[in-house]
Amino acid sequence: MTDRLTGERLVDDMTPAERARAERVESVLPALRAAAAKADEEARFPVEHVALLRDAGLLGLVVPEEHGGLGGTLRDLAAATFAMGTACPSTALAYFFHNTSASRGLLPLEAIEAGLFDEGEIPVVRAFAEKVLTRMASGTWLANFASESVKSSSANITIATTARRTEGGWILDGEKSFGCATGVADHYLTTAKLDGYETAEGLATFFVPRDAAGVSVRAPWDGLGMRATANNGIRLDGVFIPDDEAMTIPGAFTRMLQMSRGSFVGNQLAIAAVYTGCAQNVYDVVIEQLTRRTFADTGRPIASSPMHQVLIGEMTKDLETAYLWLRRQLLLETSEPPLRPKPEVFRQWRLGKGAVTEACFQVALGAFKASGTSGAMMGGVIGRALRDLAMGLVMTFPAERGRLEVAQLVTEARQNELFATAERSS
Amino acid sequence: MTDRLTGERLVDDMTPAERARAERVESVLPALRAAAAKADEEARFPVEHVALLRDAGLLGLVVPEEHGGLGGTLRDLAAATFAMGTACPSTALAYFFHNTSASRGLLPLEAIEAGLFDEGEIPVVRAFAEKVLTRMASGTWLANFASESVKSSSANITIATTARRTEGGWILDGEKSFGCATGVADHYLTTAKLDGYETAEGLATFFVPRDAAGVSVRAPWDGLGMRATANNGIRLDGVFIPDDEAMTIPGAFTRMLQMSRGSFVGNQLAIAAVYTGCAQNVYDVVIEQLTRRTFADTGRPIASSPMHQVLIGEMTKDLETAYLWLRRQLLLETSEPPLRPKPEVFRQWRLGKGAVTEACFQVALGAFKASGTSGAMMGGVIGRALRDLAMGLVMTFPAERGRLEVAQLVTEARQNELFATAERSS
Amino acid sequence: MTDRLTGERLVDDMTPAERARAERVESVLPALRAAAAKADEEARFPVEHVALLRDAGLLGLVVPEEHGGLGGTLRDLAAATFAMGTACPSTALAYFFHNTSASRGLLPLEAIEAGLFDEGEIPVVRAFAEKVLTRMASGTWLANFASESVKSSSANITIATTARRTEGGWILDGEKSFGCATGVADHYLTTAKLDGYETAEGLATFFVPRDAAGVSVRAPWDGLGMRATANNGIRLDGVFIPDDEAMTIPGAFTRMLQMSRGSFVGNQLAIAAVYTGCAQNVYDVVIEQLTRRTFADTGRPIASSPMHQVLIGEMTKDLETAYLWLRRQLLLETSEPPLRPKPEVFRQWRLGKGAVTEACFQVALGAFKASGTSGAMMGGVIGRALRDLAMGLVMTFPAERGRLEVAQLVTEARQNELFATAERSS
Amino acid sequence: MTDRLTGERLVDDMTPAERARAERVESVLPALRAAAAKADEEARFPVEHVALLRDAGLLGLVVPEEHGGLGGTLRDLAAATFAMGTACPSTALAYFFHNTSASRGLLPLEAIEAGLFDEGEIPVVRAFAEKVLTRMASGTWLANFASESVKSSSANITIATTARRTEGGWILDGEKSFGCATGVADHYLTTAKLDGYETAEGLATFFVPRDAAGVSVRAPWDGLGMRATANNGIRLDGVFIPDDEAMTIPGAFTRMLQMSRGSFVGNQLAIAAVYTGCAQNVYDVVIEQLTRRTFADTGRPIASSPMHQVLIGEMTKDLETAYLWLRRQLLLETSEPPLRPKPEVFRQWRLGKGAVTEACFQVALGAFKASGTSGAMMGGVIGRALRDLAMGLVMTFPAERGRLEVAQLVTEARQNELFATAERSS
Repeated sequence: MTDRLTGERLVDDMTPAERARAERVESVLPALRAAAAKADEEARFPVEHVALLRDAGLLGLVVPEEHGGLGGTLRDLAAATFAMGTACPSTALAYFFHNTSASRGLLPLEAIEAGLFDEGEIPVVRAFAEKVLTRMASGTWLANFASESVKSSSANITIATTARRTEGGWILDGEKSFGCATGVADHYLTTAKLDGYETAEGLATFFVPRDAAGVSVRAPWDGLGMRATANNGIRLDGVFIPDDEAMTIPGAFTRMLQMSRGSFVGNQLAIAAVYTGCAQNVYDVVIEQLTRRTFADTGRPIASSPMHQVLIGEMTKDLETAYLWLRRQLLLETSEPPLRPKPEVFRQWRLGKGAVTEACFQVALGAFKASGTSGAMMGGVIGRALRDLAMGLVMTFPAERGRLEVAQLVTEARQNELFATAERSS
Repeated sequence: MTDRLTGERLVDDMTPAERARAERVESVLPALRAAAAKADEEARFPVEHVALLRDAGLLGLVVPEEHGGLGGTLRDLAAATFAMGTACPSTALAYFFHNTSASRGLLPLEAIEAGLFDEGEIPVVRAFAEKVLTRMASGTWLANFASESVKSSSANITIATTARRTEGGWILDGEKSFGCATGVADHYLTTAKLDGYETAEGLATFFVPRDAAGVSVRAPWDGLGMRATANNGIRLDGVFIPDDEAMTIPGAFTRMLQMSRGSFVGNQLAIAAVYTGCAQNVYDVVIEQLTRRTFADTGRPIASSPMHQVLIGEMTKDLETAYLWLRRQLLLETSEPPLRPKPEVFRQWRLGKGAVTEACFQVALGAFKASGTSGAMMGGVIGRALRDLAMGLVMTFPAERGRLEVAQLVTEARQNELFATAERSS
Repeated sequence: MTDRLTGERLVDDMTPAERARAERVESVLPALRAAAAKADEEARFPVEHVALLRDAGLLGLVVPEEHGGLGGTLRDLAAATFAMGTACPSTALAYFFHNTSASRGLLPLEAIEAGLFDEGEIPVVRAFAEKVLTRMASGTWLANFASESVKSSSANITIATTARRTEGGWILDGEKSFGCATGVADHYLTTAKLDGYETAEGLATFFVPRDAAGVSVRAPWDGLGMRATANNGIRLDGVFIPDDEAMTIPGAFTRMLQMSRGSFVGNQLAIAAVYTGCAQNVYDVVIEQLTRRTFADTGRPIASSPMHQVLIGEMTKDLETAYLWLRRQLLLETSEPPLRPKPEVFRQWRLGKGAVTEACFQVALGAFKASGTSGAMMGGVIGRALRDLAMGLVMTFPAERGRLEVAQLVTEARQNELFATAERSS
Repeated sequence: MTDRLTGERLVDDMTPAERARAERVESVLPALRAAAAKADEEARFPVEHVALLRDAGLLGLVVPEEHGGLGGTLRDLAAATFAMGTACPSTALAYFFHNTSASRGLLPLEAIEAGLFDEGEIPVVRAFAEKVLTRMASGTWLANFASESVKSSSANITIATTARRTEGGWILDGEKSFGCATGVADHYLTTAKLDGYETAEGLATFFVPRDAAGVSVRAPWDGLGMRATANNGIRLDGVFIPDDEAMTIPGAFTRMLQMSRGSFVGNQLAIAAVYTGCAQNVYDVVIEQLTRRTFADTGRPIASSPMHQVLIGEMTKDLETAYLWLRRQLLLETSEPPLRPKPEVFRQWRLGKGAVTEACFQVALGAFKASGTSGAMMGGVIGRALRDLAMGLVMTFPAERGRLEVAQLVTEARQNELFATAERSS
């Protein structure tokens, strides 16, 4: 077991093919780890990582082999973002978002298979989908820009960016508040609302070249953590995108989502794997430090003090808790045939996302406390982990929101069931 | 999925053979459920359950088919105790202890295979092991009496009951503080220390007939929960056990333990499955009540109030947490080849036992709060679940102890690793 | 400090007069403590306690001296219910409810002083108020029956019991779900809604004699804890109450409430003092046990094990937390001039009630865990405390509800403030 | 109440004299608040604050009037550090440490009164004590340097800095790991161990001028929070201190400590007041933001969402929890006559320190979650508060350690009591 790969701490039943892909990931970890501290300090995405990952073939990790990729699945992605998370969480996060772009290729192809598009639509859908996949496989970094800053009480994401028709293409206007790899990615895969639509039917996807006219980077984002992700967001002022760089069939987006195993475009658990990797790393580092350093009077390791034993016990439990939710979600989203119906898989993730990120943050907090005043630094593995893992608490939705959503789902499901029972018995 | 068996909520990937065995369990649940309230109220083990389970073939659930049993594994046992836990946790607990007796047959046979016994010992060991298994398979209820009331700081269980040699057998003296099915089981499988030994080498196992001379039942145990388990314990005053009803080879016990996948005699997770079944049931009942009952002013279900939504969200997360630890442990203890080395499996359970039982208790506490003053009864599903699940917090060891033990294991493992590294580099 | 009275653990700055009253309370504690276990087991209010408390003058503890009472305030009441809570929580709770009746005398008299009643009303209001007080002072036990089982989403208590006019008095019909001392109290002070009213304006108060025609005791209440309170509730079927035993001026109830320092009729903190007394007692008992009992191998006290040290640390913090909220609330409700405006005092209690009862329950849970399987009994100080303190979690409202209510108060207060600011600046 | 001073949120029963002193504090808050963000960003102690506080007379806040100070007590200090904590926690912290120097003047004078010094010692002790006090009153900033980086299992602080005798004075060598106002304070009041002593008997105090030969500032301390405190620490390499700038009577330190009301040199609760002020501020800011900002679809405030209501409820409870522990400790350390014996006051603080700082951190964490991704910044009130309040978790000792220490104190006290009882009865 001495040659266990980092990603195998999460996915502990890899197939040989998965292991081969994981070895590519393993090969980039030393470079990521070496650059992490400075990248955080300078709040700068290490652009050299783009070439590093491209050269390792990892930009096409989850692209099917027939489109030139490595043919990995969500299991590979989770193992990869986890492993990178142990080395440089920021890079892992940006890499995660690059990979989510693949769903814009994979899900439409599945939707075609499932008969959700008609004859006239299929060629257009297929062409765009294959473009996404082949670009990724050929070494293009695709940022994925969806989030905006407007908040609605009824939806997790609200899209205000608009696309209006013009000759040979579309004009985009709007602002994207978050999206890793701003100014770094080759293309920003951007969601906008077609002029004249008010619902999700009107959501369309565009390849926005990084240097297109009208594209500007917002003011530098001075985040508490995950600072090396180039997460500034962009402004789009009358940006022209030609037709063949756009997927604008009304309802294409929502039809595509029907193919997702989990929530939204799927894959969300791989972002939680980033945090879990980070938590595993801070855990390893602090255990090593506390065991190596000793008390001046007794010579025993600091780790052996009653207070440290309490903290280590809690951290170990919290870390394991993160793994448990993550592995279960991974199983639910990849098992064939599906172990549980989609609504349960969806519901599970509303709980799981918060459970994993809370647990990971608690690991960092335990490490922070265990290290005392002298370890309470801005930088260093512990200070960085505390800040990086704090980001996990707010990304997408906090645990409190996930639990309330599940409570509502549970209540409504039960109401429907009682209603059905009453109907039957009457 | 409408015909999902109760046990499949825990073990959701049953084989057809497992499902067939689980159907036997399903068949006894209505009777268990019907008797649960009264059994708790009277603090009486429903003796009629012995025949019920025997007739369903369930006393030999985990006995191999070649010894006349159903050939189930730990997966079957966990599914069974979970399912029974939804109906009558007391019966599920007593049934669990009956099944743990099987390890006194299975582990020695494995130890023989592994070459841990010599030629002279093998016939004796095999004969006793097979007697355990065939008795179970033939419908004998075997209580398993190990615990005593003396506490040591360094061990979970201390054995003070003694066995001294006499002509043709042994004389037993001592007191067993806990052990389900006192006065109900056909035999008490009893651990005692051979005269002249001070270590675990001297631990021996005896079949003590329920009605043997010198055996008496201790004063009724008035437990807070799990009241229908006949958990009084016994006194042994000069009880004679003939040679062929005893397994007294020095060191047999410790050699047998080497074959265990988890801790102690294994199977411990199936006791946590009892609690998880109980938690699932109280969850179902309270969700149903809160959704059916409505506010007088708005007509909306009680469940929809903000406070109830908070409680339901927490309960749902807690219940899922119990499942996660349990399923992981089950995987770790049954996977072939082993997914993780034995020390990790052992360590995981030190955390898992406490994590499951704490989570289950929190489900009951949430149900209790959600039901308000009018539901705060001694009996009823909620009052019983709160009391039954409180027992889980103290059985074997509390979560706080498990976490501290794991902290110690982690610290020592790391110290050894650092030491080895220092050695190598010097 | 060796002669510190029990009540001084809570109210640690008693005046000499308060101390004298607290000595009366101290004198009854041994009898309460001696009867507690059996009273719980039999779920029976020890009627002999009525005479005991009457003889000690304690039925008039908070009745002003001019009405024949001892002249105690909320400070005395809290010290008393706390002290009794250490001995027999059920009796302390029933005694608390008896004392809340005093507010039906005290608040109206204050409302008269404040000019809230007109000349025509004053004699009627005063006569009824004085009757409440003099009856209490003369040794009458007054149960206080408000709660009903109907639930509204917008109010903590909904009154459905009705009072309709008849010659010389009123006819009462309805059911009261809770109210200590059913079948024991001399009179039930009962809230009902005057015929023809739909709002709190129509709430009226009646002295219902225990043995009046049409009054019946509901089926025995089989509560999880606080079992010796005779908390069955009553049914009222056409019960006639003469005019001079009723306070039926419309709006009298709401005007009276304006005089309350805290929430509702005030005094609620004294019920939390019952729970805190119970928590202090279980804490003392378990610390004593764990320190006296020793490990068989080392001879050191059980309390010294790492796990027990963790539990004792938590319990000590939780117990102190209960005291902190309680003492603060007592200060806020008794300080002259008021330290904080009434809305803050009210708001504080919405948090405080839940904070105290949660903390107390955690103390019992810690004691339960620390005692292990052998202490996990239905009876005994620990088993009883766990059950009695569980009742605190649901009485009135759970902590989760209190926090949500405060969140709403905070949000609305801030909205009003922002609105006012916007108005001013425009 | 519109003109309530900031400090009155903590100390809500100020005397007129206290209120007058609190008005001085109030006057400096705007300047502190204005400089806070930049000071944090640059990790630079705003030296201009020294003159600001000096001009307001605040450097002598707790120096008795007879020594030229304002005559404040611990109540004034707590109110001041709390108020400053709402504006700039770093300045509040540095100011706290300046004020702790006063105990080096006050406690020795009390010890003289108590007869702990003999005739020969008194003049020396008095001269040094008065020098501390008059220097503070006259506008000198005194940093207080005790902490070192060596850790012992049995003590909170270990002193390795040494002082050896030389002609006319002493030579100091060593390193101080923490101490606010490095490079800013006029003098560092420094604890060192007299040559030849191994116990606390040998601890002595020295005025080390900031610019003395041999004094150097350690590398910049890049803390996670409290970054504007100039907390670098110093090195002392053969620093000469003349006799009249030293207090070297053996045992003077320990005798002085006997006069402390709480633990160590007392006043520790005023450091917790800094954190509580910070927590109050982040609470106010986030409530204002969440109430002002609205959902795009409904126009209702963000604060009104179920998730935000849950978070606000928790934050409000946590904030109040911090106040409760703080106010109680303040009462215990200032009441005359003492409300509780010193060991209880000491014990209470072992719990209180952790309880306050954990609660404050939870407030910041709640604010962080409630603000979402867009508020998760390095700077800004919320980002700063999260980082500043994280420091509170590790300063002095974490909550986990405090609880374990109290558990030990409770256990030992009880053992002694049981022993005494056994002695008496034998």
